[in-house]
Amino acid sequence: MTDQILSHIDATLDARLERLFELIRIPSVSTDPAYAGDVARCAEWLAGTLREMGAEASTRETTGHPMVVGHLPGPSEAPHVLFYGHYDVQPADPLELWNSDPFEPVLRPVEGDTHIVARGASDDKGALMTFVEACRAFIETQGTLPIRVSFLFEGEEESGSRSLPGFLKGAAQELECDIVLVCDTDMWDRETPAVTTMFRGLVGQEITVTAGDRDLHSGMFGNAAANALAVLSDVLASLRTPDGGVAIEGFYDDVEELSPETAAEWAALPFDEEGFLTNVGLKVPAGEAGRSVLQQVWARPSCEIHGIWGGYTDPGFKTVIPCQAHAKLSFRLVAGQDPEKIRTNFLAHVRARLPEDCSVRFEDHGLSPAWAMDRENRFLAPTLEALSDEWGRSTTCGTGGSIPIIGALKAALGVDALLVGFGRFDNRIHSPNEKYDLSSFHKGMRSWVRIIERLSTCK
Amino acid sequence: MTDQILSHIDATLDARLERLFELIRIPSVSTDPAYAGDVARCAEWLAGTLREMGAEASTRETTGHPMVVGHLPGPSEAPHVLFYGHYDVQPADPLELWNSDPFEPVLRPVEGDTHIVARGASDDKGALMTFVEACRAFIETQGTLPIRVSFLFEGEEESGSRSLPGFLKGAAQELECDIVLVCDTDMWDRETPAVTTMFRGLVGQEITVTAGDRDLHSGMFGNAAANALAVLSDVLASLRTPDGGVAIEGFYDDVEELSPETAAEWAALPFDEEGFLTNVGLKVPAGEAGRSVLQQVWARPSCEIHGIWGGYTDPGFKTVIPCQAHAKLSFRLVAGQDPEKIRTNFLAHVRARLPEDCSVRFEDHGLSPAWAMDRENRFLAPTLEALSDEWGRSTTCGTGGSIPIIGALKAALGVDALLVGFGRFDNRIHSPNEKYDLSSFHKGMRSWVRIIERLSTCK
Repeated sequence: MTDQILSHIDATLDARLERLFELIRIPSVSTDPAYAGDVARCAEWLAGTLREMGAEASTRETTGHPMVVGHLPGPSEAPHVLFYGHYDVQPADPLELWNSDPFEPVLRPVEGDTHIVARGASDDKGALMTFVEACRAFIETQGTLPIRVSFLFEGEEESGSRSLPGFLKGAAQELECDIVLVCDTDMWDRETPAVTTMFRGLVGQEITVTAGDRDLHSGMFGNAAANALAVLSDVLASLRTPDGGVAIEGFYDDVEELSPETAAEWAALPFDEEGFLTNVGLKVPAGEAGRSVLQQVWARPSCEIHGIWGGYTDPGFKTVIPCQAHAKLSFRLVAGQDPEKIRTNFLAHVRARLPEDCSVRFEDHGLSPAWAMDRENRFLAPTLEALSDEWGRSTTCGTGGSIPIIGALKAALGVDALLVGFGRFDNRIHSPNEKYDLSSFHKGMRSWVRIIERLSTCK
Repeated sequence: MTDQILSHIDATLDARLERLFELIRIPSVSTDPAYAGDVARCAEWLAGTLREMGAEASTRETTGHPMVVGHLPGPSEAPHVLFYGHYDVQPADPLELWNSDPFEPVLRPVEGDTHIVARGASDDKGALMTFVEACRAFIETQGTLPIRVSFLFEGEEESGSRSLPGFLKGAAQELECDIVLVCDTDMWDRETPAVTTMFRGLVGQEITVTAGDRDLHSGMFGNAAANALAVLSDVLASLRTPDGGVAIEGFYDDVEELSPETAAEWAALPFDEEGFLTNVGLKVPAGEAGRSVLQQVWARPSCEIHGIWGGYTDPGFKTVIPCQAHAKLSFRLVAGQDPEKIRTNFLAHVRARLPEDCSVRFEDHGLSPAWAMDRENRFLAPTLEALSDEWGRSTTCGTGGSIPIIGALKAALGVDALLVGFGRFDNRIHSPNEKYDLSSFHKGMRSWVRIIERLSTCK
């Protein structure tokens, strides 16, 4: 049966590609109100596509852009999966850096593959259609799916997912499932598909240090007056230890160490530590001494400064003692760490280092926990096996970024998520000339067919 | 004789004020090419005024705005002073913050005094005319001056004094003198005139730290990649010691301690340490522990950060690891410190703290030594005595700022300078509603008459 479906996919690739192109051609830029009509049209297109495949599907109004919800039946004793994807895209600017129209996909042959170049080719229309077309191939050849599949397509992922929590609350019963599938992660490398089993949380903060009530002249006040930029520099420098760790009290208290199984799997990955840094003009891992680079970016919490500003920053020179200084920074968290506690300890750390005549204001920019999939989850092993069937290998991996949607889905639906994607590191998502490899689409559909087959046997 | 001149000044104040108003009405804004004609007209007005007083005077072309040079004869055995002032002014904007036309001086009565309000009322037209009118009173009553007086009026002080060093080189012989008088310093307070006997030098620097060749995503690279802002924060924090000193190697090696005489004079000044800081919303002196605030701002070297920028500084949040970070900072120097050496040691300090895969670029923004007048200078004591005759008291003082012109004059002419001014702390120079107290003008002229008398007896 599997072979029949896979052959069918191979034979009908052009038609599948054409449907992906149709979807890409709708410029569903969610952040720009000028595209609101296109976003709505895109949602209708998807609902129509699901209905065409026999699903009960419709768009749902929200406080923002519509959701698309659909259900394809399957054997009642088989697992029920909810596939999450998003149909909105980032703006295409700067347009002048594109080599072709961002909303008119083109195929560009490259060494050993072909690129589908367009905004959304990868993020997330390509990834989403890779799954949808796998389902379609099942239905076209078998008349039905061996598992129950529900779909949830969001139209605001690129602009903050503001309607999602409220929508999930109201739709929790309709979206009941055994596992959520999420499809916008990457492969480990071009030969190795991966299940992403952990990502980091985030505590984002903006701080404003105030020293006095006006800018002063360093000739008149230099030395005697507190300098907001000097106070800020001291505070920021105090956040890291000399060996690359984070110096906040209790920061590492609840950090969970990697399971020996995962650590071994990562150690076995063909990862070029040196190349990872030399590719971006660096050489020395800046994180905790004694930890591998992969551990530093996937499994260890971090503290990074994203922006600092204050005082005179125009051309020339002005000997001002600024009374205000600003910084944006964040902590990436790993499993075990409580974002609230880290935030509280950070605030206390800063306050303890302020001269008594200075003050500080904090602004929150995100507070989300890390996530790690239970290695015993019954769907993990079959998925890795299915991926190995298609690619000859597979792995679990982490990601240093944060995917807040997983937390929202888990909170609303009470189930875990399985993160499988066929994107590549170099897909230029959010940038000009975004691409998706034709092999990601083709072998990705084949992979989903194999995964669906394997999941259907899970008890 | 002195009394006769002083009475004459008291009797003719209105005419003297009118001449000051005439000068102020010429909008000699040197930085704006639109005012070049007015600047030239202002120079001619001054040369004409000096000739009217019997001087040999003329304007001199330079690479920029003209200089005015004049000579008034006196007894050949008497000291020869060169009076330096500048006739250009700062732009008047923002115009909407002025309560009257900046180039139409008005008299505004205030409690206990009258303000002359206009651009240049104080800086430097008021200060300059205070001296010129004292000379005129001598000539009007005595027919001549008891000392030889040369005048040098610059038209580019507010826009960088670019022509001055070259001009001084060529005119050194003509400008030969025993002492330079400079008039744009302030009184200690409204009752106490001061001779400023020291000011600080400056080493200005801009630094750019580079970490890698592109901005990175903190999700993908956080921990492992060097962060330019974190490196910069560490470097800046390392410049100060916990007790408020500067941590650069050898920074204090050549610092000259205050003479016991000067230290005693300062300790006797009625200075409100607490008020100095609480007036600007601060409380705790931030400089070296154990030093008085006056010593911190006048007699101790400092390190101040004037600006920092880098990474994402717009509203919202972006989890970038920036590859570049910038800061502007300066060191105020005191007598004994070599600006070149401080600069070299600062560069070495920064370089020693950079991770090996980061780099730094430096840009100079000024390099000038501190200056301290020799307390034994033969003109100092008579000047302080003359000031006491007029005001009942006088003092020496320092200033934390830098006055590069003094160094240029000393280098070109080989003589020291005597800094006497009747400005006040609250004159709003460079700001809207600049003012000069009528008493500064009136008692300032009377003071200069007494100083000129005293100097004429110096051997």
